[in-house]
Amino acid sequence: MPPGGRQMQESRVPARVLLCNLMPDQKLRVIPLGGLGEFGMNIMALQYGNDIIVIDAGMMFPEDELLGVDIVTPDLTFLTENRDKVRALVLTHGHEDHIGAVPYFLAEFDVPIYGTALTLALVDRRLEEHDLENEPQFHPVEPRQQVEIGPFTVEFIRVTHSIPHAMALAITTPLGVIIHTGDFKIDPTPFDNEPFDLHTFAEYGKRGVLLLLSDSTNVDRAGYTESERAVRPRMQEVFSRAEGRLVITGFSSSVHRIQLVIDTAHESGRKLVLLGRSMMSTTEIAHNLGLLNLPDGLLMRPQDLLTAPPKKVAVLISGTQGEPMSALARAAVNNHKHLSVRPGDLVAFSARIIPGNEKAIFRMIDHLSRRGADVLYGNMSPPLHVSGHASVEELALMLNLVRPRYFVPLHGDYRQLAKHARLAEHMRYSGLDSSFVLETGEVLEFDERGARKSGKVTVGRVCIDSGTVAEVVEDVVIRDRRLLSEDGIILPIIAINKHTGRSEKLPEIVARGFAPADDGSGFVQNARQVVALTLENSSPEEMMDWGVMKEKIRMDLKRHIAKQTQRRPLIMPVILEV
Amino acid sequence: MPPGGRQMQESRVPARVLLCNLMPDQKLRVIPLGGLGEFGMNIMALQYGNDIIVIDAGMMFPEDELLGVDIVTPDLTFLTENRDKVRALVLTHGHEDHIGAVPYFLAEFDVPIYGTALTLALVDRRLEEHDLENEPQFHPVEPRQQVEIGPFTVEFIRVTHSIPHAMALAITTPLGVIIHTGDFKIDPTPFDNEPFDLHTFAEYGKRGVLLLLSDSTNVDRAGYTESERAVRPRMQEVFSRAEGRLVITGFSSSVHRIQLVIDTAHESGRKLVLLGRSMMSTTEIAHNLGLLNLPDGLLMRPQDLLTAPPKKVAVLISGTQGEPMSALARAAVNNHKHLSVRPGDLVAFSARIIPGNEKAIFRMIDHLSRRGADVLYGNMSPPLHVSGHASVEELALMLNLVRPRYFVPLHGDYRQLAKHARLAEHMRYSGLDSSFVLETGEVLEFDERGARKSGKVTVGRVCIDSGTVAEVVEDVVIRDRRLLSEDGIILPIIAINKHTGRSEKLPEIVARGFAPADDGSGFVQNARQVVALTLENSSPEEMMDWGVMKEKIRMDLKRHIAKQTQRRPLIMPVILEV
Repeated sequence: MPPGGRQMQESRVPARVLLCNLMPDQKLRVIPLGGLGEFGMNIMALQYGNDIIVIDAGMMFPEDELLGVDIVTPDLTFLTENRDKVRALVLTHGHEDHIGAVPYFLAEFDVPIYGTALTLALVDRRLEEHDLENEPQFHPVEPRQQVEIGPFTVEFIRVTHSIPHAMALAITTPLGVIIHTGDFKIDPTPFDNEPFDLHTFAEYGKRGVLLLLSDSTNVDRAGYTESERAVRPRMQEVFSRAEGRLVITGFSSSVHRIQLVIDTAHESGRKLVLLGRSMMSTTEIAHNLGLLNLPDGLLMRPQDLLTAPPKKVAVLISGTQGEPMSALARAAVNNHKHLSVRPGDLVAFSARIIPGNEKAIFRMIDHLSRRGADVLYGNMSPPLHVSGHASVEELALMLNLVRPRYFVPLHGDYRQLAKHARLAEHMRYSGLDSSFVLETGEVLEFDERGARKSGKVTVGRVCIDSGTVAEVVEDVVIRDRRLLSEDGIILPIIAINKHTGRSEKLPEIVARGFAPADDGSGFVQNARQVVALTLENSSPEEMMDWGVMKEKIRMDLKRHIAKQTQRRPLIMPVILEV
Repeated sequence: MPPGGRQMQESRVPARVLLCNLMPDQKLRVIPLGGLGEFGMNIMALQYGNDIIVIDAGMMFPEDELLGVDIVTPDLTFLTENRDKVRALVLTHGHEDHIGAVPYFLAEFDVPIYGTALTLALVDRRLEEHDLENEPQFHPVEPRQQVEIGPFTVEFIRVTHSIPHAMALAITTPLGVIIHTGDFKIDPTPFDNEPFDLHTFAEYGKRGVLLLLSDSTNVDRAGYTESERAVRPRMQEVFSRAEGRLVITGFSSSVHRIQLVIDTAHESGRKLVLLGRSMMSTTEIAHNLGLLNLPDGLLMRPQDLLTAPPKKVAVLISGTQGEPMSALARAAVNNHKHLSVRPGDLVAFSARIIPGNEKAIFRMIDHLSRRGADVLYGNMSPPLHVSGHASVEELALMLNLVRPRYFVPLHGDYRQLAKHARLAEHMRYSGLDSSFVLETGEVLEFDERGARKSGKVTVGRVCIDSGTVAEVVEDVVIRDRRLLSEDGIILPIIAINKHTGRSEKLPEIVARGFAPADDGSGFVQNARQVVALTLENSSPEEMMDWGVMKEKIRMDLKRHIAKQTQRRPLIMPVILEV
């Protein structure tokens, strides 16, 4: 144990006293490596002397501008440069924006991973697609459990969120206690009757907290976020309203919502079909952990969907965000093996629209409407979806419970962090010294005199390019964005006739910084044929949906180029309507 | 007057009777040329025998995919092929999606234009940028006025909407009455005390209506849309909350909202500065028509903004949608001549987010937050913005008032049209025969036996490429999308270093189908220099905003290429973060 390391004691002393009890030149550093001033990809390092713990390691989905890669993960340069100091990875909960980068982290750092059973099981599912040298060192934890890691003592505190087993962290350091909320809302009537642990937050608040790091996702929303239980009346109404087949789409990680659909299907005498790889595997994982109560005989196989009486079946399907290759997006353009949407079907969205996805989602709803389905989406009261994040009043309650000396807003774009910091400052109850709006890479440093911003570390985004999305991922290529332009860029340019919906000329291929394009080997000509074939094999409905077409072209061309050249240029299809 | 033409009579006979009273082979055709199954660009033709009237001629803003043109207007091929039949253009109100294409329509058809004074004044403003051969034949109309156009008698009926002088149309034809609602909501307490004319709708409904065409924009919203007056308490609260400068952004066509800001500024003792070309000119037009009450001495010149005491000034600025070259977007990246946003400023959004613009708007709000402003946006209650479109209960009221035999939903994407048709069918009060979901180009035909879909006409989108956006438009090029690929495409590819925010290499220029690129004249080299110069002259804040950068690059390159070659290729900047 390094100097300054100390055990958690039964009768803790207030944070103020702890400030005196440390090595004179030791500093505590809070280092966000992702997720502050950007949406997703949450990861943070805490450093005291020669010890670093890492909290969460999430991914984000690429923006349109980066079409050509599948997922984006944080640049871990700061951690690799401090490789000998990294002691552990601590996970708050199992959402992709908190665990999606764990496989890439583990490929570099063979350290213990702490998290609840569900969180670790979801990490394990991701690891199946990767080939790690060592068995991961999973350490499952329970609420109120404390673990010692170097100079840090981490206590896991139960919060409520849209996934079970979500935890906040109380991290006792030689300089005082840091509370990291993870993602949370304060649900007074949680679906699993596992309440938000107000008392432990209150205890820490009473004893004194140096720093609160708190979730800013919903700081734009006034009042309180509704309880997950508020969805039940609307779900029951939707089931009783559906005169034919009922298709519900939701987030595959929302175990409580899956339970609600299971319960309501059971009550209404419908069998349930799960569609979408993530929906099926999450249900299996949660069921194995005893987190889902699944009546015998309720589930039906997807292949029986075609012949089942419409009134006797409900479908729970993934693809709420209009992701081009998701089960629902495929069904919307009549390209799903088992589900063909038709008049009489009711399709209900039990999910929110993540900003930026509006066009893709509305395009998908237009397709579903054209196929004759009645589509239920948007806000309604009572709701068919509630958020998992705290609104303003809950954020204020958290600040009042914890009463930190310093405050740093977590998780959100700049405007949200700024608003959350402003909220804390407007509240200025006894004790708040100051709040800091940190962006990814900015370091906050503590010593016995207090806290201040202290320089920047290397941060960035790493693009992950998997074999294909829908199939099992065989080989994964990790690339820093800095290398992207060296791998080259390929722009297939396709002109689609608006009236016929067809492409009448052979596609153009523009390549830059990509050697095979220049060597006269017929590469461009072959690539044009590949794209032309993709277009030929697409249905008129798919041709109308540029999001789908771009993704199909990208995937087919990627596969072709990887096979021919072992290279992975950035591929950005350009579709012109003529 | 052609056979079958008939005058509007004082005591009208029901539609059912009218069905018997016509030339045996004459048909009535409803032909949407834009706006059905797409958002914006509203235009519809009504044909009876040898007579056509056109209702509205709107534009739409291009989607991202079409970056490279400024606005999009409907293809008028159907009308030019029936040139000798086109009798008149009838306008419902002055929003861009209803009048934006009037200049292009007038360039082809020198026919009378009917509309209210404000609508015609807004058309006239647009015409200033164009060089028409003939003086436009403006025919200002008043509510309840009837005009005869060939076999049609058009009565203008006052509705309430987010712009004054909005009208629905009751069009008496030889086959019965068609009601076209235009855009509307049913505001019980309109800002100008000019009420929605329920009684005239009721009269027509009582006598019998063949077809109702009704606005579907807000069919997704339950209940009633709030009155414009509902914004007043929140606006007053915002004015009294602002401790420094107050910057309000709103739609420049919202005359009632401008009046509210004027009133509240006056009450609170602040001077008002108008920023943005459209905001200033709309205010001038509305004031000249007596639609705005502007206290003497309230307005302040933009150049006095720098020296005015913050507590004594409010700014009303255009750019609610984060349009890259708008006044607010420029101010957000500190590139506006008169407004430099700073800590202590309160920026309030009195507008909705139009779907698809979320990223641009949130990016702009992030910039404003970084500059230290407190930003008020999103939904709140009481509201700082209300919609101008009817929600479900108002749409049902319209159906119940008018009691049409046939129903066609107007204005919206497919899902919204389908939902509105479903609403009508669920209501199936006495009289509704059937509803039709028409998409742009699909013809609905009426004869004595009833209505049916009857083929398609040529429709499409025409891209308009103006000189520049911000300056006075000198020369305007109209191009059919079919010609786009013949004009060629240019893709400037720029790599920006995420950490430094600078572009470190000379930009790449990829050109296709664009002759000068191939002739060795140094075109590509010069174009690279132009783009490099644009990058050099941009502030670090602008460099962070890809939306702004793409638009700047596009405009500078367009100007350069037009000067060098008199050609106008499609320009699509590609920015890579490395």
